[in-house]
Amino acid sequence: MPRTRSALPSPAGPVRLTPGARTALRPAAVTVDGGFWHDRRAANARVSLPQGPDLLESAGNLHNLRLAAGTAEGTFQGAYPFVDTDVYKWLEAASWHLAGNTDEDTDEDTGESTDAALAADVARIVALVAAAQQPDGYLNTWFQLVKGGERYQDLRWGHELYCAGHLIQAAVAHHRATGRPDLLDAARRFADHIDSVFGPPGSGRPIDGIDGHPEVETALVELYRETGERRYLDLAGYFVDRHGHGLLGGAAYCQDRVPVREATNVEGHAVRQLYLLAAAADLAAETGDTGLRTAAERLWLAMTTTKTHLTGGLGAHHDKEDFGDPYELPNERAYCETCAAIASVQWSWRMALLTGEARYSDLIERTLYNGFLAGVSLDGERWLYVNPLQVRDGHTDTGGDQSARRTRWFRCACCPPNVMRLLASLEHYLASSDEQGLQIHQFVTGTYTTDRVRVRAETDYPWHGTIAFTVEETPSDGPWTLSLRIPEWCREFRVRCGEETYDSALDHGWLRLARTWAPGDQVVLELALEPRLTAADPRVDAVRGCVAIERGPLVHCLEQVDHPGGGLDDIVLDPSRPLAVKHRPDLLGGVTTVVAAGRRRRVPDRGWWPYAPAHGVPAETDGEPVELTAIPYHVWANREDGSMRVWLPTS
Amino acid sequence: MPRTRSALPSPAGPVRLTPGARTALRPAAVTVDGGFWHDRRAANARVSLPQGPDLLESAGNLHNLRLAAGTAEGTFQGAYPFVDTDVYKWLEAASWHLAGNTDEDTDEDTGESTDAALAADVARIVALVAAAQQPDGYLNTWFQLVKGGERYQDLRWGHELYCAGHLIQAAVAHHRATGRPDLLDAARRFADHIDSVFGPPGSGRPIDGIDGHPEVETALVELYRETGERRYLDLAGYFVDRHGHGLLGGAAYCQDRVPVREATNVEGHAVRQLYLLAAAADLAAETGDTGLRTAAERLWLAMTTTKTHLTGGLGAHHDKEDFGDPYELPNERAYCETCAAIASVQWSWRMALLTGEARYSDLIERTLYNGFLAGVSLDGERWLYVNPLQVRDGHTDTGGDQSARRTRWFRCACCPPNVMRLLASLEHYLASSDEQGLQIHQFVTGTYTTDRVRVRAETDYPWHGTIAFTVEETPSDGPWTLSLRIPEWCREFRVRCGEETYDSALDHGWLRLARTWAPGDQVVLELALEPRLTAADPRVDAVRGCVAIERGPLVHCLEQVDHPGGGLDDIVLDPSRPLAVKHRPDLLGGVTTVVAAGRRRRVPDRGWWPYAPAHGVPAETDGEPVELTAIPYHVWANREDGSMRVWLPTS
Repeated sequence: MPRTRSALPSPAGPVRLTPGARTALRPAAVTVDGGFWHDRRAANARVSLPQGPDLLESAGNLHNLRLAAGTAEGTFQGAYPFVDTDVYKWLEAASWHLAGNTDEDTDEDTGESTDAALAADVARIVALVAAAQQPDGYLNTWFQLVKGGERYQDLRWGHELYCAGHLIQAAVAHHRATGRPDLLDAARRFADHIDSVFGPPGSGRPIDGIDGHPEVETALVELYRETGERRYLDLAGYFVDRHGHGLLGGAAYCQDRVPVREATNVEGHAVRQLYLLAAAADLAAETGDTGLRTAAERLWLAMTTTKTHLTGGLGAHHDKEDFGDPYELPNERAYCETCAAIASVQWSWRMALLTGEARYSDLIERTLYNGFLAGVSLDGERWLYVNPLQVRDGHTDTGGDQSARRTRWFRCACCPPNVMRLLASLEHYLASSDEQGLQIHQFVTGTYTTDRVRVRAETDYPWHGTIAFTVEETPSDGPWTLSLRIPEWCREFRVRCGEETYDSALDHGWLRLARTWAPGDQVVLELALEPRLTAADPRVDAVRGCVAIERGPLVHCLEQVDHPGGGLDDIVLDPSRPLAVKHRPDLLGGVTTVVAAGRRRRVPDRGWWPYAPAHGVPAETDGEPVELTAIPYHVWANREDGSMRVWLPTS
Repeated sequence: MPRTRSALPSPAGPVRLTPGARTALRPAAVTVDGGFWHDRRAANARVSLPQGPDLLESAGNLHNLRLAAGTAEGTFQGAYPFVDTDVYKWLEAASWHLAGNTDEDTDEDTGESTDAALAADVARIVALVAAAQQPDGYLNTWFQLVKGGERYQDLRWGHELYCAGHLIQAAVAHHRATGRPDLLDAARRFADHIDSVFGPPGSGRPIDGIDGHPEVETALVELYRETGERRYLDLAGYFVDRHGHGLLGGAAYCQDRVPVREATNVEGHAVRQLYLLAAAADLAAETGDTGLRTAAERLWLAMTTTKTHLTGGLGAHHDKEDFGDPYELPNERAYCETCAAIASVQWSWRMALLTGEARYSDLIERTLYNGFLAGVSLDGERWLYVNPLQVRDGHTDTGGDQSARRTRWFRCACCPPNVMRLLASLEHYLASSDEQGLQIHQFVTGTYTTDRVRVRAETDYPWHGTIAFTVEETPSDGPWTLSLRIPEWCREFRVRCGEETYDSALDHGWLRLARTWAPGDQVVLELALEPRLTAADPRVDAVRGCVAIERGPLVHCLEQVDHPGGGLDDIVLDPSRPLAVKHRPDLLGGVTTVVAAGRRRRVPDRGWWPYAPAHGVPAETDGEPVELTAIPYHVWANREDGSMRVWLPTS
């Protein structure tokens, strides 16, 4: 079943700004057809996405929709009022894949196009969603089936608008991908229904309220962008600004303790906070609201400065999936939910477009290659809900969703389809354009296209630091600027552009190459990928006296399996010895490892009490030297179970 | 209403070993009539205990009992199936107080004896409990009122046997304190009922099961001790050994992952684990079961070596109130539930009696003065459920039971009456006797009595290190041994005993003074209380590069209120400068503080990203010098809210 592709450079992506939007940049179209991300997206397309319908079937999500549609009998399955969103996120993911895929994979057994099968699954499930929807547009199988249809009685925990938001996002994706109106019509009916129910006092709407889990806000902005209906944007703005006024009892968890415009740091449930702030950025972009923009900029800076793990992971606490306090960044209990990494990318991308600043894409790069990508196994079949930076020797795994071991599916299965949708839409977070030209935020093998120019890139990044760009299409009538983001971690780079070489003169993280280009012009960027030892701000108590190994955008870690003969908690790294790079095509699908020198310390017997006077106790002695093999963090937990460490003590 | 006191030296305490018990030591009677613990017990008697009935009334606990008794109308109040235990623990606490109190306080307004009022409250509530009990002995208001009387359908979460355990413990206390049979009769009826329902396959009992929260096991041992009915002991043994066989699904949380005899470290929910191990020690003492004794010794050592906070606090995780992994001992998120500290004291005391080893009382001392005592405010009116070792600058308190701020009562009010019962029975954890003589485990102002000897002690410990003992009664016909525990933390001590002086020659923590004593003989023990800096085993990642200030048995901490002009997270302690001691009768009811030299570091601006290369970034610069005032940890959170730290970085 061949699909028509849009010939427009404006991509069918998740953030399609309106013509009047007050942003510095707009997304540019990218196709990713080789290299690192192509491989990971291929696993998503080949394994994760096609398995979705079966998993949603066996977990009961589709059954619930059939129950609501009256086409099946039985009882609601699942433990949460938001299980419908697993379906919506899968629909969104599949839609982005169908919109953006350039390969025509075929099933090994049947020889049929796997995309055709996927498209059929999408169509079938879209029809199921539409059938489950109530005549007035409302749809939530939990409330329809379990709560006797009692709507909006428990906004704090009910997730009804949250579910609506994911339905809307799926519908926008489906419409952009296929051009078909069916799911978008369903989403509009639900949005219209919400708009008739929710509004400020005096608006004539019966409920002045918000949802305990932000999500509908960003979705409504995108629905406005897709339909041109201004009232969806206004409704999003109303919801954003009603947070923090105690409508849900004032809990930080629900983003109800303080209004966004007054907040001084991110707080509460990490995913809730990040989705809300993505909407604030969207609103600022669409309306020019400088108050929201200022708040979003302030909160992003506070978050990165005080509440972000080295991997880009967000959310320190298991308890309440909460951000935690400033500089409270534990390793062993880092929560770093996969969904929070995804939400962070979504928010930061909106900030990057809003402001044009490179640092937002710096965080995106770090998050994509580390805190996000660790969430899915190399084979695309198993998942991590939480992404700790340490698993101890002697760890007792309690299983469940928050296990440090990869799981086939979760009781609360929010993360897997969220990973699928980000991987399937990844090309939309990579580049932007403005009147000056093209900005390349992330380096991939593929083609970057705006309405005026096309640039081809070839690279083996992040394993190697060379990215070769070739200008393929360019207007001949004047100059434009090719802007390359030089990553925050990069201490040395060189750009060859014809006869010229650049190695400095950055414009806030951007290298600007302004010239009149000709087709075939080449630009070669070389980023030095020397491995490095990284230390944290001294206020990050959890990693005092430790360093982490990084190389390029990759955080590395030690895994037990590479270090036989003892645990990892007694390993000490020697920071005076050089780090070596070893490319290992044999390992974990092909990775570059960093080799460091260390030793296993011998702790003197302290008897039964592990605390002793700081002065005068026998010091630990040097143990045997150990060669440390640091693999990229994003491939951990793909072999046998065991301990893992990102941060390593140096003495 | 005067009460008769037992003239027997064998005290009416929580652990009354049977004559045949296989223990090294037996509890000795102590009266505490002055000094540190007398003051804290006075607040318990004057404020906490008398307020209990009103708090139990307003929280609905007594209302539930009246509903079950059919003497009131309405609906069940409270959120948990174990709310009855708040009543039972209060009854136990009040009973111990009435059994052991030597003062006759009077109400300031009425001039009446407050103990008389307390005794009347006890009698009233005992009658209420008896009236709520069902004819066959079963009693649990949640199941009677909310669950339609469906018993034992949810052993994992139902807490029915847990509640029975606390009822039994209260009944034993009440019987020992008052000699009255009413509550004990109720407890026996319940125990007999349980014995008719629970038992191994083939026993003829309908259910082979255990409770998700151990507690009934220890209670049944004590009921055996009180009644002589061997089948209560057997039932306790059955329950202990059925843990770890998957009867509750195998969760570590419920102590069901591994049998006690096979476990290699403590795990799961801390209080559940500790109550279970207290029962294992009880059973080993009563039956001579060496397998259980070996397991208890092994697990105690594993716990102290790898899972105990400096304060004696236990349980690293907020999530599931779990022990966490070995050496996972975070400060900022230390859970250290007050109930876990209490359970630790209970278990360790049984181990001390079982083995005669001093280290168990070393841990008791540390726990009592730190992790336990911090759980109640100086005025006896407010409580901490969790006892972190750090509250950060900029901490956002989420309120609720796990708040870092003291609370008047909790939704899950397990801790306050648990504190009350330990304080009210504290004198039973202080000394022991054997055929050789008297062992003094903890130092108080008061009188230590065995069936043969009486020793008076005067001390201002822990503020000063001198404890003066006077032999008041002694047999004249031969020698006996006065054993003094020299605390694990003590590096220098001296004992004057007549003309002789001892400053070494410890027998595994005991100083043994064997001689023929005469009334009036004096022994003066001087423990050097020089303040000290303490460091942790290097595997405790959370406190690498940090020290804690300790003095004697007291862990100290910094509070924000004593350090104006900045937060605590930028404080660096200078370990090369001497520590000074300052007695502060004006402060917090009179405490001794430790003064240290420090500075406030200035962290150079790192931009938006708090991680940077370990080599070559601008180092932090020395900031202004700061005099650090370290108060005892147990009095923290008695003034205005603010940050707090136990562990302080040294560079």
